[in-house]
Amino acid sequence: MVRCKVSETEQHERRIKRVQEALSLRSMDALYVASHVSIFYLTGFSYIATERPAALLIPVEGEITFMGPLLEVDHIHLKTRLIEHVKTYFDYPGKKHPIDQFAHFLKELNLEDKRIGIDNMTGAEGIWGYSGPTITDKLPKATFILASDIIREMRLIKTHEEIELIRESARWANLAHSILQEWTAPDLWDWDVAAAASLEASIIMKRTLGPSYEPQRRGLTPVTAGFRGQVGEMAAIPHSIATGRRMRRGDVLVTGAGADVGGYSCELERTLFLGEPTEKQKEYFLIMQKAQEEALEAFQPGEKCSTIDKIAASVFKRAGYKTRTRHHVGHGLGLEGHEPPWLDIGNDDILRAGMVVSCEPGIYEPGFGGFRHSDSVLITEDGAEIITYYPRDLDSLTIPA
Amino acid sequence: MVRCKVSETEQHERRIKRVQEALSLRSMDALYVASHVSIFYLTGFSYIATERPAALLIPVEGEITFMGPLLEVDHIHLKTRLIEHVKTYFDYPGKKHPIDQFAHFLKELNLEDKRIGIDNMTGAEGIWGYSGPTITDKLPKATFILASDIIREMRLIKTHEEIELIRESARWANLAHSILQEWTAPDLWDWDVAAAASLEASIIMKRTLGPSYEPQRRGLTPVTAGFRGQVGEMAAIPHSIATGRRMRRGDVLVTGAGADVGGYSCELERTLFLGEPTEKQKEYFLIMQKAQEEALEAFQPGEKCSTIDKIAASVFKRAGYKTRTRHHVGHGLGLEGHEPPWLDIGNDDILRAGMVVSCEPGIYEPGFGGFRHSDSVLITEDGAEIITYYPRDLDSLTIPA
Repeated sequence: MVRCKVSETEQHERRIKRVQEALSLRSMDALYVASHVSIFYLTGFSYIATERPAALLIPVEGEITFMGPLLEVDHIHLKTRLIEHVKTYFDYPGKKHPIDQFAHFLKELNLEDKRIGIDNMTGAEGIWGYSGPTITDKLPKATFILASDIIREMRLIKTHEEIELIRESARWANLAHSILQEWTAPDLWDWDVAAAASLEASIIMKRTLGPSYEPQRRGLTPVTAGFRGQVGEMAAIPHSIATGRRMRRGDVLVTGAGADVGGYSCELERTLFLGEPTEKQKEYFLIMQKAQEEALEAFQPGEKCSTIDKIAASVFKRAGYKTRTRHHVGHGLGLEGHEPPWLDIGNDDILRAGMVVSCEPGIYEPGFGGFRHSDSVLITEDGAEIITYYPRDLDSLTIPA
Repeated sequence: MVRCKVSETEQHERRIKRVQEALSLRSMDALYVASHVSIFYLTGFSYIATERPAALLIPVEGEITFMGPLLEVDHIHLKTRLIEHVKTYFDYPGKKHPIDQFAHFLKELNLEDKRIGIDNMTGAEGIWGYSGPTITDKLPKATFILASDIIREMRLIKTHEEIELIRESARWANLAHSILQEWTAPDLWDWDVAAAASLEASIIMKRTLGPSYEPQRRGLTPVTAGFRGQVGEMAAIPHSIATGRRMRRGDVLVTGAGADVGGYSCELERTLFLGEPTEKQKEYFLIMQKAQEEALEAFQPGEKCSTIDKIAASVFKRAGYKTRTRHHVGHGLGLEGHEPPWLDIGNDDILRAGMVVSCEPGIYEPGFGGFRHSDSVLITEDGAEIITYYPRDLDSLTIPA
């Protein structure tokens, strides 16, 4: 199928239009968006979220307004033409609290007594020591309605362009992971190898893509591959942050790799062995692999999210490893580390074409190790496509040592 | 003065005790803490915050309970002995929402109809696509009272041990920054130099501190130094994320460096010149430097936070650069990028011994560049001490090119 490339600006314009259609259907006069990820999704403007509140105001008809700290004013003008109006406060907390200023700005926009959809009832992301009143309290005549589902629903189904970014991300994650595996050896610190491989892959990506490539997420390198502390017995901790010791022969390692392409990233994780695995390590690995294979087989439009989780869980249960599980089988991905849809026993939502999710069943034995692969899966019109393509088999993932 | 070293466990026990004293004074039966940073502060347990809710319950008397996802259960037992009870749900969203499960756990703890202080009225951090009911709705017979000020107030004044961690962080930030400056040269990409310098400094730190050192924050390297996109004309964007071009002769650069030591970091930022600065660049630099010097002179216990901001602003105003400012003079630091107290015209809180804040007046001209140093300042009993010690003068910060 031939597709015309849609410019970034046009993609953002389409998203804004879809928001406005949703507002119209719900008889809302505007949407108030406090999430910096949603603001990036709608406008392409990426900024560092801090204690300083910021929000995008999209009226049901007409021009959009960004409200935020003065330090973003020049940044916005450089990065997007979609935001017609920028209203700023000097800094947080200020003589007049930013939320009071936002209430004032909403009055200026004649929204004081209107029906306003909002993605967060406080009106601020509220991180890094922030405190303050809620926008809903400051505009008592307005009717605020939680409408976070509008953008959540849009983000669930990726467009052709978003999928291409995730595909491109998978190429560079694959490169970084290849280098990571090649450089992993006994007696090295895991994060030393991780940072070196991430840097090497990032430099190659930058050289390959040329000057048009710019990271959208804040981070040390745009491509990353590492172990997040899942080394040896600490591999049993699914979200281990770090280990204090060097890697050694006999370690099982759980990796993770990704790459920021247009703000999107795939998710790629593998279970590696440093030296020949023991029989017990092999057994865990093969059961995990079987659970992933059976789950991957089941992805198709129309299937329930919960079904995928049950399939993986059932492999573990049949093998007698039920008590070794620590989490569900996967989650949506794209702009954030995790996002809906949740592939969880409690979520009966239906998989639809355009969803991109991780498939990552894992088993863990405290004091022994952890075993998890994660791949990024695109739901297509008639099935599914695994976007990440790094080898999954035991031989390919065994590092001679 | 000779001080006895207080063990980490004892520090955490003291903090829990202070929380319990505050609860007792306020006639509260328990504190519900949803912030992962506060949980780390109170217990030393560091975990990756995700969409999965977690909370710490501290009763006014007795043992403390962590409620969270199953995937943290082994992690907690490894990392802390302060948390006596761990109550988990399998995963998010689950057949029964985690907040419903938390409500059930609170009933088991006989808190159903009690007075409960809480750091966030929803009961969850609410990131990464999370949605759910509020804990306050789920326990209508309980009285929830916003009490985020208890831990905020404790964190404002750093203990001797916390200050030592920030001091140690300043040493490694200084090393990373030295390497960064040494390796910066025309025709390199800023993040390439940044990642290489961060890795080098991290390896040296790890070798120096030995196996007892473990990162507490998630990140590619425990020590970082870089430019965050503030290169050349993009240096005019205080929170620029990235640039697409290589550095070149004539660029002004704004750096940033830090190091995770026990979860704490200093803040160190410098304005560098790649090659001899122009007269106009010099003028901006010298005014910024004067603003920082006058602000640094003013730190002392008893002074208002707002006064420090006014002093820096007044230097800029007198020099005719008022329209070039984009933010206030500084913020507290320690466990998070920014934290209270805010050195802001709107904050008349009094500086007290033990506070650690940044001092970072900046001026920016769109299309031309940005000029900002940041140092970490400790308020002492009789004045202030600048913890970061990297050179601040123009000659030291000019890179031959």
